[in-house]
Amino acid sequence: MKLVVIGGDAAGMSAASQARKRLGADRLEIVAFERGHFTSYSACGIPYWIGGFVKEREALVARTPEQHRRAGIDVRLRHEVVGIDLDRREVVAHDLTGGGEVRESFDHLVYATGASPVTPEWARIPAAGIFGVQTLDDGAAIHDWLAREQPKKAVVIGGGYIGVEMAEAMVKRGLDVTLLEKSPEPMAKTVDPDVGALVRKAIGEEGIEVVTNAHVSGIETSGGKVREVVTPGGALAADIVVMGLGVRPNSALAAEAGIPVGVTGGVRTDRRMRAEGIEGVWAAGDCVETRHLLTGDPVHIPLGTHANKQGRVAGINIGGGYATFPGVIGTAVTKVCNLEVARTGLTEKEARRAGFAFVTATVESTSRAGYYPGAELMTIKLIAEKRTGTLLGAQIVGRTEAAKRIDALAVAVWNRMTVEEMTALDLSYAPPFAPVWDPVLIASRKATDAVHNAM
Amino acid sequence: MKLVVIGGDAAGMSAASQARKRLGADRLEIVAFERGHFTSYSACGIPYWIGGFVKEREALVARTPEQHRRAGIDVRLRHEVVGIDLDRREVVAHDLTGGGEVRESFDHLVYATGASPVTPEWARIPAAGIFGVQTLDDGAAIHDWLAREQPKKAVVIGGGYIGVEMAEAMVKRGLDVTLLEKSPEPMAKTVDPDVGALVRKAIGEEGIEVVTNAHVSGIETSGGKVREVVTPGGALAADIVVMGLGVRPNSALAAEAGIPVGVTGGVRTDRRMRAEGIEGVWAAGDCVETRHLLTGDPVHIPLGTHANKQGRVAGINIGGGYATFPGVIGTAVTKVCNLEVARTGLTEKEARRAGFAFVTATVESTSRAGYYPGAELMTIKLIAEKRTGTLLGAQIVGRTEAAKRIDALAVAVWNRMTVEEMTALDLSYAPPFAPVWDPVLIASRKATDAVHNAM
Repeated sequence: MKLVVIGGDAAGMSAASQARKRLGADRLEIVAFERGHFTSYSACGIPYWIGGFVKEREALVARTPEQHRRAGIDVRLRHEVVGIDLDRREVVAHDLTGGGEVRESFDHLVYATGASPVTPEWARIPAAGIFGVQTLDDGAAIHDWLAREQPKKAVVIGGGYIGVEMAEAMVKRGLDVTLLEKSPEPMAKTVDPDVGALVRKAIGEEGIEVVTNAHVSGIETSGGKVREVVTPGGALAADIVVMGLGVRPNSALAAEAGIPVGVTGGVRTDRRMRAEGIEGVWAAGDCVETRHLLTGDPVHIPLGTHANKQGRVAGINIGGGYATFPGVIGTAVTKVCNLEVARTGLTEKEARRAGFAFVTATVESTSRAGYYPGAELMTIKLIAEKRTGTLLGAQIVGRTEAAKRIDALAVAVWNRMTVEEMTALDLSYAPPFAPVWDPVLIASRKATDAVHNAM
Repeated sequence: MKLVVIGGDAAGMSAASQARKRLGADRLEIVAFERGHFTSYSACGIPYWIGGFVKEREALVARTPEQHRRAGIDVRLRHEVVGIDLDRREVVAHDLTGGGEVRESFDHLVYATGASPVTPEWARIPAAGIFGVQTLDDGAAIHDWLAREQPKKAVVIGGGYIGVEMAEAMVKRGLDVTLLEKSPEPMAKTVDPDVGALVRKAIGEEGIEVVTNAHVSGIETSGGKVREVVTPGGALAADIVVMGLGVRPNSALAAEAGIPVGVTGGVRTDRRMRAEGIEGVWAAGDCVETRHLLTGDPVHIPLGTHANKQGRVAGINIGGGYATFPGVIGTAVTKVCNLEVARTGLTEKEARRAGFAFVTATVESTSRAGYYPGAELMTIKLIAEKRTGTLLGAQIVGRTEAAKRIDALAVAVWNRMTVEEMTALDLSYAPPFAPVWDPVLIASRKATDAVHNAM
């Protein structure tokens, strides 16, 4: 039996590894095509490598092609798959190093092509110094540019978490950084504007110039290199431009082959990660859409943690086991300068779009008992459905020991808890870890009052 | 209407404050008797004050008697209630400052007398230098003794979390400290022996001499002061002895009055914290027993976080509202030297006693992505019911950013999640906060395998 994997990062190689664990080389041949130079790397770690927190690029690679090959996985780097023939059960790949066309038949196919940075019309110009941040090859290109060109001025377009993380990384490298965000506050897709305002303040204090309500109309070049970013408010000098406008699933190849693609642009799968309705074809990672467990709607949420889980689930099922990926609830966390920012469930905007009526409650409390050294302020915001009091979402901003509290809230969202039941939750308490009322409990109390007051 | 509160710490004063919030002074008179000198303090903070982490005793007091009085609560310090007459709806108190007997009638009574350190026969001797650690008065007595007597050698009897925290506090003050524990490993009531062994190692490295399997047969005194602790293995010199053998609920006064006391020795209440079957009488805090939500059994778990919740619930109900305290799942956390130790649900011993058949899974992982600076090892152990895979308990030991992960596991236990469902949990991931597979997810995967293998 033969498994062909398209895409050598988290999702694809997790699938390959799990299938291999269950079926030895005598029972399953595995060929994995990867367009770039790396396998199984942490794309999430790129900003920390650029910023110098992480010293070596190799540290971001969880498993090298050689390691995969030792496990009996035939990894073909620099191979781009250009066609899938479902009738013939065959893929066609181009060897980008000039080796021509390769054809491989398959019994099982894992489609794990990832996503690509959104690039508006005005950014599609043949100039050096404009970068997206999606693959480790992207990261390596930025790293080289910074070393070679020694840019002084950076413009980051888009204030989502990748934009913010990259802005911080370049400030750490000594660049003057301007962050342009079209919404009134940064991280507009991640947190509500009231929480986003806290983020804006923190990154401003770090020396990043944040321009919100910003619209980019073009990029000017000079000698084949980026020179400035043009906005209605004037041009901004730029020796490097980083695009942080989000990513889109790489699903065109799937669509051409007749693999169903959903409204989000992601490949559709069932809960075992099988491509919808197609036996032996699986999809996982940033190229798929999944189900939001609170709204029931399809969503495209490209995150390494989902990619790993989905790849593992696909691989277990290919190997004859049984595993499922039921969906997501929108949990995310990031560290922005000294600020920890986390969310789960729905933001106000998302809850409204899904038709929920809700109340909110925001509290400020401390990470440790107020009298214990190192106690730091944090803000927790909860969103609860009107009438039922079901927890719909949570957001946390704090300095230290704040963000990981989102996990308790994520498990509460997952289990459809009401904020009233949450006030009784037996959470851990000791002075070095929490006030006697953990901030999560204080927020639950306030949200319960809000639900009652709105009855 | 009049409310009388017996006990001026967390439970009693939370009840008083919540009742006051709902019923003004024109509608509710509140009298609170407190045997000691303090109200609303953090007993859990005592070891950190003794150890010098917290500089001022006042920092441990959340609300002073004066602050309560300004809220219209008539706090009577140094008053010990010696009788409750349920027929006459009256309590009798002694003014310990010599003011004689006081009688107060009540419509509502809150019984919040706390607990007292277990004192074996051999420790009931009239010698100075032997201390329990339960009230802030206890803490103040230890603090005074350390300042006045400048003891060199300390023996802590009992290696539960209070014993371990006090041992660390005295090492920090420069004393030679020996910790005696009758079980094979410290924290035997909190964690399984395999996890306890990690604790023993960490506190040994801190310079505390730990003697396990230790049995104390007596205490020798000299000139009215403690001199040595006698064990079958020989006598240990001791200028101060701290008792850490646990506490028992102060329920004798309730029992004498005919208020039902349960098998654990704690006062029995319903979920609104009303004393079982007695209108207008409420009980909360370290003096009550509660329900373990996994076993259904009554348990006595004296913790500040429960006391605060129970007091609040009682006060809301007294004030005409509706609130419940459904029970506990055994969550606890402590910091021992540089080690974070946390648990929720049942230990192996507890699960066995409750009749569960189970599997366990222990994993080691890191607090942050392995490549991110500051990543520290942690150990997570899960206990899952055989066949169903329901999560029964979890234990965590780690250096930093480890213990608070217990909260996500506590919410999973609370909701009766299976370890298999937990492998899909949408927990937060970013390199500064977790590996791409959070340790909680890795442990869930391994526990799922263990459940399958035991089918």
